Amino acid sequence: MPSQFDPPSGTRDFLAADVERREHAFGVIRAVADRYGFEPLQTPAFERLDVLLGKYGDEGDKLVFKILRRGEHEATGEADLALRYDLTVPLARVAAAYGSQLPVPYKRYAIGSVWRADRPGKDRYREFVQCDLDTLGSSSVLADAETLCAQHDALAELGLRDFTIQLNSRRVLAGLLEAFGVPETIGTQVLISLDKLDKMAAADVAAELADRGLDLAQAGELVDMLTAADAPERLRVALKQSDAGVAGLDEVDTVLSLVAGQIPAERIAFTPRMVRGLSYYTGPIWELVAPGVAGSIGSGGRYDHLIEALGGPDVPGTGASIGVERILAMLPDGAPRPRLDVAVTVMGPALAGEAFGLAGIARAAGLRASVYLGGSGKLGRQLKWASDSGARWCLIYGEREAETGLVTVRDMVSGDQAAVPVADLGERLASLRAEG
Amino acid sequence: MPSQFDPPSGTRDFLAADVERREHAFGVIRAVADRYGFEPLQTPAFERLDVLLGKYGDEGDKLVFKILRRGEHEATGEADLALRYDLTVPLARVAAAYGSQLPVPYKRYAIGSVWRADRPGKDRYREFVQCDLDTLGSSSVLADAETLCAQHDALAELGLRDFTIQLNSRRVLAGLLEAFGVPETIGTQVLISLDKLDKMAAADVAAELADRGLDLAQAGELVDMLTAADAPERLRVALKQSDAGVAGLDEVDTVLSLVAGQIPAERIAFTPRMVRGLSYYTGPIWELVAPGVAGSIGSGGRYDHLIEALGGPDVPGTGASIGVERILAMLPDGAPRPRLDVAVTVMGPALAGEAFGLAGIARAAGLRASVYLGGSGKLGRQLKWASDSGARWCLIYGEREAETGLVTVRDMVSGDQAAVPVADLGERLASLRAEG
Repeated sequence: MPSQFDPPSGTRDFLAADVERREHAFGVIRAVADRYGFEPLQTPAFERLDVLLGKYGDEGDKLVFKILRRGEHEATGEADLALRYDLTVPLARVAAAYGSQLPVPYKRYAIGSVWRADRPGKDRYREFVQCDLDTLGSSSVLADAETLCAQHDALAELGLRDFTIQLNSRRVLAGLLEAFGVPETIGTQVLISLDKLDKMAAADVAAELADRGLDLAQAGELVDMLTAADAPERLRVALKQSDAGVAGLDEVDTVLSLVAGQIPAERIAFTPRMVRGLSYYTGPIWELVAPGVAGSIGSGGRYDHLIEALGGPDVPGTGASIGVERILAMLPDGAPRPRLDVAVTVMGPALAGEAFGLAGIARAAGLRASVYLGGSGKLGRQLKWASDSGARWCLIYGEREAETGLVTVRDMVSGDQAAVPVADLGERLASLRAEG
Repeated sequence: MPSQFDPPSGTRDFLAADVERREHAFGVIRAVADRYGFEPLQTPAFERLDVLLGKYGDEGDKLVFKILRRGEHEATGEADLALRYDLTVPLARVAAAYGSQLPVPYKRYAIGSVWRADRPGKDRYREFVQCDLDTLGSSSVLADAETLCAQHDALAELGLRDFTIQLNSRRVLAGLLEAFGVPETIGTQVLISLDKLDKMAAADVAAELADRGLDLAQAGELVDMLTAADAPERLRVALKQSDAGVAGLDEVDTVLSLVAGQIPAERIAFTPRMVRGLSYYTGPIWELVAPGVAGSIGSGGRYDHLIEALGGPDVPGTGASIGVERILAMLPDGAPRPRLDVAVTVMGPALAGEAFGLAGIARAAGLRASVYLGGSGKLGRQLKWASDSGARWCLIYGEREAETGLVTVRDMVSGDQAAVPVADLGERLASLRAEG
């Protein structure tokens, strides 16, 4: 039951273990992007309303979180700003704003929250992180292949093993429509139906194609070919007469050959029936899927006119999106990290300064350390705190220790204790830590 | 002149060099917080409107960015959510929501954007990052001192040297009002006036105190004492008869003695006239100031009733805030990092696969590498790209290299070239990199 203290519907609070998991994953992606020469970009959480509206279709526009005007204008009930809905519209704006300052090509990655007023559900949030790699200003298929390699490496380094990349090209699909004599007017609709082959029975897709205006026999033949085990080979034959088709096949083959040394062959396959829902793709397209996971865990493709359509300059572009929220949900939780390495007792006000100093020595030795901040002067209570905080070692410094100048280092796992001269403490802790 | 492609008023786009600077600073703060056993917390960008409103005073409420209701409710012009205004109200909500799951004390740090519809100006933004360290659930002065040490270490590790910590206690100030017989009814007003001693002439502050109802001679005496070089000593005498004053002085002395081993003595001083504007402090308070910098670069203090006042549980608390935006503006820019370590030529479509492989070898050796993604087959153009991207080395792989199996490694600084067997490339690059 939602409480008044819950975060707003569809959003999440991330306590320590979650933050660490998430930041680790983002860090892996950042490191891979960096290694490929993608540079980071961060844009504001909100954009002017006119920058966002009209870019995501009517359905998308409805999901935009709008920000009310302020001061005397608040009473109008109008909005002038809106939370970003994705990272691509801000990229288009940045490309327009800083064009001449940006390198050519401009390879950027962005990892950031986006907000959508979708109905919240299992693994569907109103605030979630998107993670995009894009290259603007290169029409080379090398840019497509490079982006795909970076995306693949990121997933592999996140620890995913069991995923595959479905590769296709919009030009292959254009050639297919041409080869089957599908009228241009219904081409997009036909592709939308074909995109359902993953989820719907082939016969139902064929029937839907017939509804859209294809001859039923032809629709059956199309569906048969795309779902056949030897779909790629049959397609290569069927597309021989189509210029677009031949160019598309060439594009697919080039990507496959470029990535051959980087992506294991069993992880990538030409998948003619993979369409990608979005209409703006113009060249190679791909989707990353994992067994047992509905939908994709990553996707990408070339979109040579999208940046201009979004209000940016007329530059070719290609990009990949890593489904980092979905991937985080797939990865095992792992053991949460203990809060402390070293807990330091405070056996009385007169000994607090020394306790502070001991914690400082532990930190200088690279360990996470804190003094006891509670009100009890009892050792038992303080050891309980040390244990609750997950500390590996507890430093006990009472009157006896103050007299001898030896600090008691207690191993919180074995219970063993050793008396260590304060002057040697840093070195001792560092070596205990190295032993593990 | 603002362009249609600028980010919204008061917000910023961060291109690569800025992101790297900022993330580096945040990383330093994270590492210090971690070492002290503070754990991370991330909360949503927005909260329910009722969680935020009424927490920041009338002036603050006006600066809250409100989010319009959605769907059929949009037409009402009403808001139901608002962008977070600080990181403390979300902390209070989290303390209420997850109370029993949180450690005691709960030491958390948060680094995140907040949004305020303030009039934008030089170094004043509508979207900016706050960075807070707080300890909830400990009423010990050790928690105050520990937080202060962590804050100090963060600034020192960010590279700041020339800053000082002004330390005081709200109880010292309460004792001062008592010692001077200031009626409780005007106590807060008197402190607000005294807070101006940094910016206003002493005589003007005394006059203002007289306006507020103090006897003019008494006001002059109070101001004299606080601005005297020996203010701490004079205060110690003046507060002898006040219980609150004695307790406050003891608190200040305890903090000073606890941090003595951690913070250089010349960097911290008991500063009786330092009041801190906010009324919610209950114990030690401090401000970090740097010469030539208006305002503070950090602050903190004990606020034992604030979390409850903000809608959270009744827990004592103490916290420090690092003025990371101001500090970032103070730090030198530093040389931006080159985009690439290794640039790889693509001398023709047939050689692209090998170029991809060479870039992969460089990445596996830990270097940032990319192939040429432009349309020119000319070496000169590709070397220009390599140079523009800041690459330290360029790998040239043309027909001659393909025949011999030797890749040309060009040092982009000296212009020297070496022919390296492809099989040895990774090792060679790693050793070149180690040489610097």
